[in-house]
Amino acid sequence: AAPIAVFAGPCQMESREHALECASALKEIAERLGIGLIYKSSFDKANRTSLSGKRGMGLAAALPVFAEIRETLGLPVVTDVHEPEQCAVVAEVIDVLQIPAFLCRQTDLLIAAAKTGRIIKIKKGQFLAPWDMKNAVDKVVGSGNANVLLTERGASFGYNTLVSDMRALPIMAETGCPVIFDATHSVQQPGGQGASSGGDRRYVPVLARAAVAVGVAGLFIETHPDPDHAPSDGPNMVPLCDFEALMKDLQAIDRVVKSARAPV
Amino acid sequence: AAPIAVFAGPCQMESREHALECASALKEIAERLGIGLIYKSSFDKANRTSLSGKRGMGLAAALPVFAEIRETLGLPVVTDVHEPEQCAVVAEVIDVLQIPAFLCRQTDLLIAAAKTGRIIKIKKGQFLAPWDMKNAVDKVVGSGNANVLLTERGASFGYNTLVSDMRALPIMAETGCPVIFDATHSVQQPGGQGASSGGDRRYVPVLARAAVAVGVAGLFIETHPDPDHAPSDGPNMVPLCDFEALMKDLQAIDRVVKSARAPV
Amino acid sequence: AAPIAVFAGPCQMESREHALECASALKEIAERLGIGLIYKSSFDKANRTSLSGKRGMGLAAALPVFAEIRETLGLPVVTDVHEPEQCAVVAEVIDVLQIPAFLCRQTDLLIAAAKTGRIIKIKKGQFLAPWDMKNAVDKVVGSGNANVLLTERGASFGYNTLVSDMRALPIMAETGCPVIFDATHSVQQPGGQGASSGGDRRYVPVLARAAVAVGVAGLFIETHPDPDHAPSDGPNMVPLCDFEALMKDLQAIDRVVKSARAPV
Amino acid sequence: AAPIAVFAGPCQMESREHALECASALKEIAERLGIGLIYKSSFDKANRTSLSGKRGMGLAAALPVFAEIRETLGLPVVTDVHEPEQCAVVAEVIDVLQIPAFLCRQTDLLIAAAKTGRIIKIKKGQFLAPWDMKNAVDKVVGSGNANVLLTERGASFGYNTLVSDMRALPIMAETGCPVIFDATHSVQQPGGQGASSGGDRRYVPVLARAAVAVGVAGLFIETHPDPDHAPSDGPNMVPLCDFEALMKDLQAIDRVVKSARAPV
Repeated sequence: AAPIAVFAGPCQMESREHALECASALKEIAERLGIGLIYKSSFDKANRTSLSGKRGMGLAAALPVFAEIRETLGLPVVTDVHEPEQCAVVAEVIDVLQIPAFLCRQTDLLIAAAKTGRIIKIKKGQFLAPWDMKNAVDKVVGSGNANVLLTERGASFGYNTLVSDMRALPIMAETGCPVIFDATHSVQQPGGQGASSGGDRRYVPVLARAAVAVGVAGLFIETHPDPDHAPSDGPNMVPLCDFEALMKDLQAIDRVVKSARAPV
Repeated sequence: AAPIAVFAGPCQMESREHALECASALKEIAERLGIGLIYKSSFDKANRTSLSGKRGMGLAAALPVFAEIRETLGLPVVTDVHEPEQCAVVAEVIDVLQIPAFLCRQTDLLIAAAKTGRIIKIKKGQFLAPWDMKNAVDKVVGSGNANVLLTERGASFGYNTLVSDMRALPIMAETGCPVIFDATHSVQQPGGQGASSGGDRRYVPVLARAAVAVGVAGLFIETHPDPDHAPSDGPNMVPLCDFEALMKDLQAIDRVVKSARAPV
Repeated sequence: AAPIAVFAGPCQMESREHALECASALKEIAERLGIGLIYKSSFDKANRTSLSGKRGMGLAAALPVFAEIRETLGLPVVTDVHEPEQCAVVAEVIDVLQIPAFLCRQTDLLIAAAKTGRIIKIKKGQFLAPWDMKNAVDKVVGSGNANVLLTERGASFGYNTLVSDMRALPIMAETGCPVIFDATHSVQQPGGQGASSGGDRRYVPVLARAAVAVGVAGLFIETHPDPDHAPSDGPNMVPLCDFEALMKDLQAIDRVVKSARAPV
Repeated sequence: AAPIAVFAGPCQMESREHALECASALKEIAERLGIGLIYKSSFDKANRTSLSGKRGMGLAAALPVFAEIRETLGLPVVTDVHEPEQCAVVAEVIDVLQIPAFLCRQTDLLIAAAKTGRIIKIKKGQFLAPWDMKNAVDKVVGSGNANVLLTERGASFGYNTLVSDMRALPIMAETGCPVIFDATHSVQQPGGQGASSGGDRRYVPVLARAAVAVGVAGLFIETHPDPDHAPSDGPNMVPLCDFEALMKDLQAIDRVVKSARAPV
């Protein structure tokens, strides 16, 4: 199996400068580590806990910045889509279209995303069993696009808590799709802070190490120069200054696991 | 508190004839029982488990039928909306716009629905704590529409299973919104049949009785003349021939509870 | 079906005076309401969260008090057993031996309890599916004692939270055993206060109403003259002064449900 | 941190010959791998799903065999205790007394075990949050015994399913006690086969790798020469012929993790 890649970047695109700065910093780290990097940011946080939560720059403003990152830094980019109509527009600039977890059963969105021919990265709903992601894959493949990535990001476990079932990784891999572990949203405490979601970034390395040891194609880790002042997902983003050391540890585990007798 | 009302009808609109037949039959029952009835059907099942699952008549074909039911039978009608753009169109004909559970955090959909001025019925996500529905209510009220109904339809409980936490009913009632118990989807086994969702209609009366005893404004119960051959949600729909007796039992409990010393 | 009975009393036996006072007060209420009463108290809380939690009077001191309550007030009594050796001793005085939820799979305890010939009341483990209680029943019946009651007291739901699945009541009733709903421990928050368990008594009437509407043989409700100063389970015990009104409401629902067309 | 050790052996002691054969085979593997081995077997399965499930040789017959394994092979041994009175007797022969998960809150058992002065290995209840194991530790330490090991073996997740929350490992490590991951019972499906518990041994290596990558003091893995004909826990035991390769993979991950920058 190929070494792990990483989908990384700040949760939302805050400004052109911020995005370019983060992308450059991550690119340097990825080059030093020799790891594949796909730059991630959201142009719109369409399901914030509250109306007053910042939603991001918006599609029109964000696409040129993604294009600039792609061209000047040579990085592939990934972002979420929320409505069928967004897919074609987003796909002009974006390499990987990500289907949010809440929307992983919305047939029209999956079809519209599939039709772009881009890579489709589907996050498993918090309400879904891993074996049921086969149905989401079938909707994309059945629409003519076999480039599907699946992502584990935690399952509902009582109220305001998610749990990461590591068995979900090999189960989803049975679809034949590469499986990505989202270590950022897996430590989210949905709605846990009243009008916003909480989280605990101390467990990002814990769960990421576990997932890499189980065997994954890649990781999804949001990172930010100053997470405690980020407009969203601050509690569960990794500080950019800790990102390189974290990835180094994960690569070491990945190398051992993928050279073992019987990798997943 | 006012006596319970009921949102009832077949899961999806199958044809004009089928819809009128069901609506007439339900109207007669409601009149005999003296119970408020809102006729329910979906024009599009936008999140079927698999691509090949029947999705319904579609918006354009269904709206005239809803209009006919409303005019000829005098029944208010409720249906789901899935995309922001649908809201204004649907609202021309439909009294109550229902926000599907998976979409209860999609801000744009909630705002677009709110802006129609219609009654907005929000289903609680299977992944959400009851106290967090306050945030969904705030999005609608903050968009200028105070006519919000909340609906309990089960919480994720391990894989392929939902559980109905009866404490959710008084907790959601603290928002001031009337609370509806959806006895049909609460007995769903999501994805439980591989390429479609299972369910167990034997527990519809069980959970409905429980919810009425706790104290609710109304019930949501899908019913069908021949559930075992219905295109969706068959395993958890109540046969139309059993509907009247079920409602009679529920009304009896409701009367006792609402005349008690300290109703919820 | 027979009208509901109630298992009631303070969580633990605190003193002879306290026990007699509670039992007398409850007896008067039961007579006014015409409801069957089994007096409940524990002589030993064998699984307190912390070592310093008060455990109760102990077996030797408690049995004479139970005997006195039984003789002078004519009330049947119920208490927990924790070790196989306790069963025969306890059975000399106690009418109903209760198997704690954590111990519902301990074969030796079930057999020893069964052998006493007393009524055996088994609480469903928080970790057990309702259909699996059949196995616990079989252990008692297979040991020659067919007098078994089953009790629902909540299922683990994430951390520090229980949820009451009302479907568990008819499922356990399929064993043929009368089913009791424990409204006190169902609202427990296990370990939720660090060194002791929390709870929320506001939901005792909510869940009790739901269970009675579903259809049960009886309720288990701990009550105390001053719950906030009780040595255990204070947060989820009902104040004795509220007990009569609560039971009255529950009886009204029970009457309606058991006279309905198709009771559970 | 020290390299991982392993608690291994067949679920129950079936006969002297069987036990000596398993222990010898495991000892050879452990020597080849240079890994610490504690031989595990149960003398009594006190909480079988059904009365007819085989319970093992019993205490009197098993203790001499444990003594023989200890003396002739020089292996430390671990077994479960279920009743306070068993502790002192068992402790004469056994190095590590294991408290079963269902019994982790039984104060008398914890105290009796603590009083033996042996190492006490407490399995976390399926119904308990990891932070609440602090209370179980305090009961043992407060009884004068600071030699406590904690074990994760899965948390209740809906019905008939357990989930392993890898965050539980560092959370329990905050007590200062070494943490063991039980990869065998974590893949159990409690009661999942009607009258016996099911499981899926394919996930033993998956969860074991994850736990080792998170960072643990040791693993608990039941193994058997012929699991499919074992009297208990067959579906989740690893075939003895696969044990060495599994441990080798786990040791490789352990070495990388414990030499990393910031091990747990």
